[in-house]
This record gives sequence, structure tokens and C-alpha cells, in this order.
Amino acid sequence: MSGNTFGKLFTVTTFGESHGPALGAIVDGCPPGLALSEMDLQADLDRRRPGKSRHTTQRREPDEVRILSGVFEGKTTGTPIGLLIENVDQRSKDYGNIKDQFRPGHADYTYQQKYGFRDYRGGGRSSARETAMRVAAGAIAKKYLRERYGVMIRGYLAQLGPIRPLKLVWDEVGNNPFFCPDPDQIVALEQFMDALRKSGDSIGARVTVVASGVPVGWGEPVFDRLDADIAHALMGINAVKGVEIGAGFASVEQRGTEHRDEMTPAGFLSNNAGGVLGGISSGQDIVASIALKPTSSLHLPGRTINLHGEPVTVVTKGRHDPCVGIRATPIVEAMLALVLMDHALRHRAQNLDVRPGMPPIPSLAPSGESAG
Amino acid sequence: MSGNTFGKLFTVTTFGESHGPALGAIVDGCPPGLALSEMDLQADLDRRRPGKSRHTTQRREPDEVRILSGVFEGKTTGTPIGLLIENVDQRSKDYGNIKDQFRPGHADYTYQQKYGFRDYRGGGRSSARETAMRVAAGAIAKKYLRERYGVMIRGYLAQLGPIRPLKLVWDEVGNNPFFCPDPDQIVALEQFMDALRKSGDSIGARVTVVASGVPVGWGEPVFDRLDADIAHALMGINAVKGVEIGAGFASVEQRGTEHRDEMTPAGFLSNNAGGVLGGISSGQDIVASIALKPTSSLHLPGRTINLHGEPVTVVTKGRHDPCVGIRATPIVEAMLALVLMDHALRHRAQNLDVRPGMPPIPSLAPSGESAG
Amino acid sequence: MSGNTFGKLFTVTTFGESHGPALGAIVDGCPPGLALSEMDLQADLDRRRPGKSRHTTQRREPDEVRILSGVFEGKTTGTPIGLLIENVDQRSKDYGNIKDQFRPGHADYTYQQKYGFRDYRGGGRSSARETAMRVAAGAIAKKYLRERYGVMIRGYLAQLGPIRPLKLVWDEVGNNPFFCPDPDQIVALEQFMDALRKSGDSIGARVTVVASGVPVGWGEPVFDRLDADIAHALMGINAVKGVEIGAGFASVEQRGTEHRDEMTPAGFLSNNAGGVLGGISSGQDIVASIALKPTSSLHLPGRTINLHGEPVTVVTKGRHDPCVGIRATPIVEAMLALVLMDHALRHRAQNLDVRPGMPPIPSLAPSGESAG
Amino acid sequence: MSGNTFGKLFTVTTFGESHGPALGAIVDGCPPGLALSEMDLQADLDRRRPGKSRHTTQRREPDEVRILSGVFEGKTTGTPIGLLIENVDQRSKDYGNIKDQFRPGHADYTYQQKYGFRDYRGGGRSSARETAMRVAAGAIAKKYLRERYGVMIRGYLAQLGPIRPLKLVWDEVGNNPFFCPDPDQIVALEQFMDALRKSGDSIGARVTVVASGVPVGWGEPVFDRLDADIAHALMGINAVKGVEIGAGFASVEQRGTEHRDEMTPAGFLSNNAGGVLGGISSGQDIVASIALKPTSSLHLPGRTINLHGEPVTVVTKGRHDPCVGIRATPIVEAMLALVLMDHALRHRAQNLDVRPGMPPIPSLAPSGESAG
Repeated sequence: MSGNTFGKLFTVTTFGESHGPALGAIVDGCPPGLALSEMDLQADLDRRRPGKSRHTTQRREPDEVRILSGVFEGKTTGTPIGLLIENVDQRSKDYGNIKDQFRPGHADYTYQQKYGFRDYRGGGRSSARETAMRVAAGAIAKKYLRERYGVMIRGYLAQLGPIRPLKLVWDEVGNNPFFCPDPDQIVALEQFMDALRKSGDSIGARVTVVASGVPVGWGEPVFDRLDADIAHALMGINAVKGVEIGAGFASVEQRGTEHRDEMTPAGFLSNNAGGVLGGISSGQDIVASIALKPTSSLHLPGRTINLHGEPVTVVTKGRHDPCVGIRATPIVEAMLALVLMDHALRHRAQNLDVRPGMPPIPSLAPSGESAG
Repeated sequence: MSGNTFGKLFTVTTFGESHGPALGAIVDGCPPGLALSEMDLQADLDRRRPGKSRHTTQRREPDEVRILSGVFEGKTTGTPIGLLIENVDQRSKDYGNIKDQFRPGHADYTYQQKYGFRDYRGGGRSSARETAMRVAAGAIAKKYLRERYGVMIRGYLAQLGPIRPLKLVWDEVGNNPFFCPDPDQIVALEQFMDALRKSGDSIGARVTVVASGVPVGWGEPVFDRLDADIAHALMGINAVKGVEIGAGFASVEQRGTEHRDEMTPAGFLSNNAGGVLGGISSGQDIVASIALKPTSSLHLPGRTINLHGEPVTVVTKGRHDPCVGIRATPIVEAMLALVLMDHALRHRAQNLDVRPGMPPIPSLAPSGESAG
Repeated sequence: MSGNTFGKLFTVTTFGESHGPALGAIVDGCPPGLALSEMDLQADLDRRRPGKSRHTTQRREPDEVRILSGVFEGKTTGTPIGLLIENVDQRSKDYGNIKDQFRPGHADYTYQQKYGFRDYRGGGRSSARETAMRVAAGAIAKKYLRERYGVMIRGYLAQLGPIRPLKLVWDEVGNNPFFCPDPDQIVALEQFMDALRKSGDSIGARVTVVASGVPVGWGEPVFDRLDADIAHALMGINAVKGVEIGAGFASVEQRGTEHRDEMTPAGFLSNNAGGVLGGISSGQDIVASIALKPTSSLHLPGRTINLHGEPVTVVTKGRHDPCVGIRATPIVEAMLALVLMDHALRHRAQNLDVRPGMPPIPSLAPSGESAG
Repeated sequence: MSGNTFGKLFTVTTFGESHGPALGAIVDGCPPGLALSEMDLQADLDRRRPGKSRHTTQRREPDEVRILSGVFEGKTTGTPIGLLIENVDQRSKDYGNIKDQFRPGHADYTYQQKYGFRDYRGGGRSSARETAMRVAAGAIAKKYLRERYGVMIRGYLAQLGPIRPLKLVWDEVGNNPFFCPDPDQIVALEQFMDALRKSGDSIGARVTVVASGVPVGWGEPVFDRLDADIAHALMGINAVKGVEIGAGFASVEQRGTEHRDEMTPAGFLSNNAGGVLGGISSGQDIVASIALKPTSSLHLPGRTINLHGEPVTVVTKGRHDPCVGIRATPIVEAMLALVLMDHALRHRAQNLDVRPGMPPIPSLAPSGESAG
């Protein structure tokens, strides 16, 4: 129930600061018998890893995860899974200069005021570095969901500043450093990011995630609706300022005749709902999008105050991501996987895993487009 | 921890269906000594009540709440507060015709598939009628937050279909049936809604809520960030498809130099963050907006299927809200109040109620405009 | 997660004071499709009801429960079940005299110190009257466990002051007002209680509860062991000062060769474990016993202090149970049922409801004797 | 909320198996500003450590704990504290022989049946080795409770088989390998244990723990009473079969006039309640006792079955504790500390840390004797 534990039945509890000795997590509630090794986790960790292209922070972290418990003879035992990643490339000296300042747009000021004291090294606990453990834990959920239910969870960059993909080619997402699904936009993205980096400024982004194959019936009315828990999970990612399900904010100007997804024996005719009705999965693709703010760590000077309330000018020297959205896709996938895994277990606790009384109807709406 | 309980320390557990004998809630964790009577709850219940204008459902419910426990000699005792509202105007006959059908865009299909069985009377548990108890419970949180911390929580209609308020006049919000803050838009709203009602169609809306006077330091990193819990609370309201904090989706196209809220000894120079930094309240106004979909209960025929998977045409005869956004404002205020109350208690559990080491700095950004 | 909610998946949240208008509960997480009516709950409520013999308090409460939600067309829907019992026989005047005093051995002093304020009418929230809702909620759990798993939960009076049953005749338990399983002890109990009542004093008791037919595998290591949660549930009943599982405190003087329950293909040869190994049910009978203190509400004067810290003499005038153990059996059964129900759901969330790899072996130890 | 997390606000989540690479824990919710280093944890770890005398298992584990996060510049930051202990002396070969057998009185059978699969090395997760992390986490709670509230938590061996201490000399507890408070019993204990070890059998024990200086008012009615949560915590320790608060099972034969702790302006005249009234701390010493069963790992042959349900004879070769009660005292202290710490935070969340309206009255009952 503490702030560093996610989920109610499939729970992930994490620890670790940007510049501490290590990051760790405990994954509890995982069903026994799942084949699991470090390699299953490393794949997504590598997708999130910094320093892979000139467009992300140049901090070099191998992010090698170790499984310390809960797996025996290659299979999960049903007991808690302990995970550990050592921090390697820390360079604390980069951060000494902001020890007494509050970087605008960062958690420095609020952590200082909440706790009366803070670890200022690279943001300490508030650093996006913490998300590495989410990705590791999410990979376990992803694997179980895929093997047990055939659920596939995939995300992509839906917008970066002014640039939007015009088509959704899933196979392209892994072929570029931006997780962009449109091969025709890669050059524009490269040029935009190079210019941005030279300018010393940063930019916002939009990421969309799609879960296909989710069974009908996951989600707990009334407060723990599936979409409510997805919103909680995604808004809880660093730098996220907005979450949409399905048509999202476009619903504001829609009419009911346009929005309501009509049904026929052949299936749903559209997916404005984004796969959730009344807080329960409908069997259509679950489609969610997030808005990520531009990072506030800039090479351009900004006005702020110091611990003594005096005005100072801050310039971030260290390494940073000029667009945090670029590396966000694996994190968004992981958080959605954790929500779905938790609700899979919550659903079967009350309702077992029985097939519904009538066969679920398919979706006739193309994947992800409603949020594309 | 069940789906019908909200909060971790200040908890609200609700029960009741649209057409059952009563709705109820148990509010647990309320600090002792708060002066409380039914009248404190009734004010907000009356703001949400249906049938007050021709623009909302004509169901006539007095929504009179009774306090059954937890209050003695006019003050809360610290023990659970039991709340009850009897359902009066039920008219089950209105709903018999959809007993075997799944209304598109409603929870009928997903409830049936999840539970294998459902209360089809007016949506049963999935009816927005359930939100009456949220408003009653939220009124307790609002009163405590106001009296103990000086927190004020106010919402307004930020958009209805194509119509947006152009100014934010708080005193106007209570003067019209739309919770619209711009007196110059009331005529347009009246005309739009009258035409819409004649057409038999429905429309979406956007509602913005602002909490002023929130102390610095509320929110629990990393998963239970204040903004993450706000997103959970607001996305958990019926018909909500999107949630924004501060600049929200506008952040996608912002640059860091534009987004980051610079600080001076005089205060924050802007509020793109919406009052939350690193998941912790900054002392600026907390500003959140939601997108509400157009209701799917229309007088216009729609395609759907029945329990046997056969194609049928559905027409909603009963009474409904052509724009659920119109009555949503008190619900949004209540849910934000519940989140803030829960985090006030969570914060002081770990950090007591001590003043921060340095005086909080004020906000120089005008209230709510960043989400207006 | 609040103090008035029990369970994690099958949750019971209660409200109500001894002399308030009503008691209530919300049961959430109940599987759908269970046939349920008020009559299913009333049977156990009647077993607990006061005033049925001269040996219990003469307060006359019909304890008629109403189901306000969660049941439709005679079956549970999977949504929360709202329960309500009106208080009828309150007689507040009986209690005015102790308004400013702290009855020794009661919660008066601690409630006053914790909350700075208390409802002094009949103990308010701390009254055993609150257990009526536990019995009502437990009856739902009992019915599901019996119908789905064949689990039978039965308790009996294992000791009253110096008097112990010498045999365990289950059919006798319902035939006398003491829940005593030994027909030969009834006369002794009648005489003891009559003399006690005349003396104005009270007496302690021991109650044993046995759950038969519990599947192998329920319980969550390491902190939420089945026996740990049983201890939590039973120690949480008013007046309970001790809890034993299986051999309990007799284990202190046992040798391993005596205590360990050897296994053969025919089954376990003994049940010192009381049906729990490593915190997980073994398939043997779950056997637990509790010690109940003598009530402190006596007609004999006692020394105490008042709100001003002055010495005063207190004499309880009102009605009371000279042995709270007499009516405790249905409450103990209910609490054990709630624990087992919660763990049944927790187990299947992670492990589904699959049969174990090898057939469970039976118990060769006679029911309950290890705690008799 | 998973089985491997303890507490609601001050939470401890643990992982690790007897023969895995490491044990770990995450302590969340710790107030910021507490001076903390590994040395604060090591003291209690050393008290629990195996192999310190010939009367405990000869497994040699240094149990050196590392703090991986949550502490900066020597003080807690309010963020999660990651703890790690590497397993050193594993000797898996010792356990291969019981790979296919279920040791009677152990968790082998129930883990196998629950999960369909188990780590058989030294009991895997069910090994008492897991308690090392509880002791490490408990040391943090102990330090905070002592520094902030002046709470002192001390335990002792109250019985070992037939041998009971006749006096309670706190200073003696640390002077002998048994945690025995009576210097006159040490020789008898030495002789008894030597003979027992030669015999190859094991013995049960009773341990009592006392918390002094606990403020009035901790504990959450009605289900999370302080004594109920203590029972949960202590029954959740390996091998525990019974828990008593205050007079415990002696209450069964007590009269109300004997049991009720009368109050005078000078203080309580006795402490049969064990420091808890109505589930809330009274300010008197909190006194709890547990019964620990004799370990089932014996050098004497026992009947059991194997994975195929066939009868086999089992003899434990490896190293074991002939009396698990000997090393239990630090574990019991740790679990009580975790409960008190959690309730300290829960209490101040709702009631802040304010002094009660009237000064608490002292206890006139000698420490621990009521459970001695």
C-alpha cells in the first residue's frame, strides 16, 4: 500500500536512486511454473537503455538485471522474485553544482519541501532511472500475459513536437531509435532532434500503446475500472501530463451517434471506447495515449531559487534526454502490462477463468488507429 | 482493496444499483472532531441532482442522505461514517425492453461477459447514479480540507461540444445549469442543448477542476504520485475518456523553455505543471481536466446484438442526460477532494504536519487558465 | 485498508455503534451467481442474538438484516452487497451514568485518549454489538465455501471457567444455550451461570472452531500465512486474549517426535499442526481456539477514574453478558469463514482452482480433539 | 497487499530462499531524517545469527546486511530502503536427499500442493532463514520508535520444554545463548539442550516480548486492533502455534473482578489486558507471548510419503536448531516493532501526534510478569 508498490495482486515494489549503488524490485504474486530467466527481462531493458543513439542521454548503463529469488530450475515458484541492477556510470560530480538549487520543472523543490531533505544526485529517487525496474518487472507480466492469454502489448511514438507518423507500420517501430511506426518520418525526426540538441532546448512527445487479445471482462467497477488503473499507471510515469483511452479528448466534440461503437454479430464496428466499457475490457484492442512534457533539464539558463530562497540562474550541465518520449515506449508497455496482469489475477480471483456465457465478438476497427 | 473502495487512509466504500432500494457508503479514516451534519453533504448532492433543468434527465430523485454512524453530538468520532440514500423514482418498466440487449457504448455487454449475469435495470451498478455517494463522501473531505488546510476545490464546464467559455468567472458557475464560468455563453449553451435534445443525439464535454491552497508536499512517489492518483480518480468517473494535469496534451508540442515553470523569490512564473512536480504538490493550484464522452443512450436507433448474439436495433426510451458533462462538475470536485484528503493523511503519517524547512512560494499564474 | 475493513479480496467493511440508528456492512468481491437471500444470513444472526436465554444480556434485538444491493433475481451479481440492521432496543438512559467515567477493562479510556472524544452510549463502536455485521457477512462466506468447496465450519464452547466438555458431540452444540458439545455438562453450566449471575461477577471462556473440507493450498507465505490471518481475525473479536492453532501452547512442552504429524499413504497420523503447515492449509481440519476474558461490566463496584482524573467507583447497572463466551461461537465461525473465503480467492488469483498434482491425503486424526 | 509485504504504512516486503544467492527487503514509508547505517541493523542480526553456540544450527552465515537506497548522508530520505544479505554457507548437497520427500511437520507438502512445484533446498522460501530480513527491517522500526517515542521493545525465553525462568532479570537476557532472563536456569538449560541434541529430538518453547513506553491510543478498531495485528505478526513467524496478549489463556478461568485492571489516579493496578483495551494501546506495557513448536527436522526417523504418494522413512541429516525458540527472541522483537511502527503512522495519519486531552496514567504492574 506504500507509494513504491504497484498493483494489488501482481505487485511490484521498487527501490533505488539515480546515483545509489543499485536499483531493485520485488515482484510478488507471480503465478508458478512460468519459464523465466534474465534474458526474458533483458530484451526490454535494452530497448529502454540510454546511450544507444545520439538522441538520448549519453549515460552508459548496461542495465544488467539479476534474478535473486523466486525462480528455481528455470521456472517461477510462486514466491517473490527479487531483481537487482547495479548502477555503473554515475559521475556524481556532474550534479554537485545543483545541490543547493531547485531546477525548474523538476522534483527538487517538492522533495525538499515534503521530506525536509533530499538526495540531489541526479534527481535521486525522482530520476527516470527508476523506470528501469518497471521495465524489468513489466517483462515478466508481458510474458505471462502472452503465454497464458495471447495478449500482445506494443507501443509507438505517436508524436514528437510537430512531427506525427502518418502510418502505423508495427514492424518499423523497432527499426529506428524513435520507436516511430512510420518509416517516412525517420529523416524528419533525425533532423529535428539534431537541431534541437544544438539549440540546447527540449521537446514534448506523445506515445500510444495498444494491447491486443485482452479477454472480455477484466476490470473492477467502480473505482478500480481498468481504464482508471491504466490512467493511474501511465500518469505515474515521469513527465507524463495527460492520458487518453480510445477517442480520448476527441470525445468532447463527438456526438453519441458518432462515438458509440455499434455492435453486430460480426463484431464492433469501431473502437472509440479504446477497448474498455464501464471500466471492463470489451475484447477490442485496449488503446491508450500519453502526453510527455519536454524535459526541464536544459543547457539554456533558467530562473529559479536556491535553498535560501534567493534567485539564481540554473544551467543543466550533465547528460540528459532532449526528448524523454523517445525512450518512453518500453516503459509505457511495461506499465500497461502490469495493470493487465494485476487485473487478470483480480478477475479470476472472483470469477475464475471461465469462458463467458457467449463467445466474445471480435473488433472490426483497425489497431490503434483511433489513437494514432 | 476491493474495486468498490477508494483511497488508502481516507477510504470510501460504496454500494447500490440504479434501481435497487438504496445507495450507501462507508467513509472510514475521517479525523475525529469535525463538525458534520447531513446538511454539509446535501449541498453538493443538490448540485448534482437530476431533474433540475430541462437539460438533464427528468428522473426525480430527492437524494436525501442520512448519516447512520460516526457522528456523535454533531462531531465526527473517528469511527466509520455510514451514509444512506433511498432510491425513490425508479420506474423499472422503462428498462424491461433492454433486458436482453446490449446497448452500444454501455457496460451491458462487459458486465454480462464478466459476471455471466447482470442487473439490467438502468445499468444496475454501472449507472452514473452510483456517483451520488461519491459526492456525499467528497463533501466530508472538502469540509475537512477547507477547515484544516484552507484548500478550496472548484470545477467548471470547460467545453460542451463546440462551445467553450472564453472567460473564467467563478461566481458565474453556480448561476446557470451548465456550471459554465462564462455568462456570455449561456444562451449559446441553451440553444445548443435544446436543438440537441430535439435531435435525439448526445454530446461530449470537458470539465476542469482547480484546487487552491494545497500545501507543498502531498503525493507519494513513485507509483502513487498525486497526479497519478488524480488520474485514477477522474478516469474512474463514468464516461471519462481522458485526463490532463496542467498543460496536459499541449505539452506534446511545447519546448522545455516554454513548459518549465521558472521560479523566483516572488513565486512560480507559470503553471504548466498544474501544481504537481515529481508527483508531489508544489503549492501552486492543482489543475486537472477531463474529457467526457457523449452518452450512448440515444433516442436514435443503433445497431447492436442481443444475449443470443443476434443483430437487433436498440432505441433508448427512458430518461437520460443528453450531455453527462453538465452534471459532472460536483462529481469531479468530489473525486479530487477524496484524493487530496487521502494524500493529506498519507503525508502526515510519514512526515507529520510540520511546516516545510522554507516558506512555500506563491503562484503568479492565474487560476485554472492553463487548463481553461 | 482502513481499520474497519476486513480481508483483501473478499472484503467486509462495517459501520455502526451500539446505540446509533443502525449497523451496516458492505461485502465486496463476492463471486457472482451465488443464490442468496436474507434468510441465509438470518440463521446465524439468530444464533448470536441476545436475550434468548437468562444467561445472556436481556437486550432485545430482532437483528433483522436487509440486503440492499448486490443481489438480483435471487443471485449475487458480483457487485458489492449492502447490509443493514436497524437498532431497536437502545435504552440510552442506562448508560448516561458512565458518561464521564472510564469503566475498567473497557475501551472507554483508550477511545477517549485516541480520539479526544467518544460516543459513550453502551461502548459506542467498541460494543460487541458490532459483531452482528460480522456474523451476517460471514454467513455469505460460509455458504459459498460450503457450496463451492464443501467446507464446513463449526464451533463450540470448549471451556467456561472451570467447566470443560468431556466429549465432542457436534449435534448437541445447537441443543443448549451454551454451544456446549457435551450433553452431560449442561446442568453444571446452568448452575454455574445462575450462581455467577447472582454474584454479580463474570467469567472467562474458551471457544474452539473447526473447519473441515478445506482444500490443500490456501494461505500466502510469508506474512499472510493462513494461521497468521486466522490469528488476526480471532484476536480481533472483542474480549479475545489468546489464539491457538492445533496443539497451540501445548507445543511448548512437546518433543518433535511427538508433535510432527507423520504422513502415510492413508493420511496424516495426527493433527498437532491444526491443519496448517508453513502457513498453508494441509487438507486436515483447521482447528483454532480462543481465550475470551470475563466481561468487565459487573454489578460489583470497581475503582476507576473519571474524565478529570479523579478517583470514582463504577457499578454497571445496564444489561450485560456475564460470560461473553456464550454467544461467541457464531462470531468465531464467521471470522474463520471470512479468512478462508479471502484466501480461497487469493489462492485462485495466483494458482487458479486447479487440482493439485497429487491427490490430497486425508486426515486420520479425529475432528477438533487436538484443541478439545 | 501481497503475502510477502507486511504493514500498511510502514511496509516491509521481503524476498529470498534459504539456498538462493541472497535475501532482500524493501522498507517503505520510513519517516525522513532518521540517522541510519548498516551498524544499526547488524546488532540485531548478530543476536539472531546461527552458529553462535552449540545449541543452534551450525550453519555459518555472517548475515552482513547492505543498505542499497533510501539513506543519504547518513539519514533516511523518506524513499524506500533497499536491504540485501548474500547467502554464503549454503551446502545444497545436504538437501538433495529430501528432494522427492515431504518432511513431516514441514511446508514441503503444502508448497508442493499449492504451487505444483517447489524449491526443496533447505525449505526454500519456507525456511526460517527468511526471518533475517524481518530482523533487519525491525531494527529500523525499533530505532525510530525509541528515538521518537521512547518505546523500548525487549523479549526473553519464557519457557523451554519443562524449564521456566523463575525471575525476570532483563540484564541477564543478553548474557546467555538462550535469551533466558533467569541466571539460575542457565545450567539446567545447557544440560537439557546437550541431552536433547544427543537424543536427536527437538523441543518447543515459549517466548515473551514486552514493549514499554508505548503511547496511549495506537491501534485501529475494529478489525485492525493493535492486539489483532500483533497476533497476525507473531503467528506469522515460523513454528509459532499460539499467541497470547496479557493474561492470555489464563483469562478463561478468571472472574471479571480478578481480570479487569482497575484504575486510580496513580495508575492501573494490574495489567491483565497486556497493554491493550478495545484494540488500542492503554499506555501500560504491551505484553505478548508465543508458543513455538519443536522443529520437525530430527535425526530420528519418521514416516512420511514421497512425491509419488509412496511411504518412505525420512531422517534429517543436515544442520538444524533442536529448539527454534532459542533464536526466536530477536525475531519476535522485530515483528512487534513493525506492528507498533505501522500503527504509530496509522494513528498520526488520522489523529496527528497530538497529546491526549488528559495526561496518560502510568502502570503500577511490574513489567512482563503477567506473561512471565
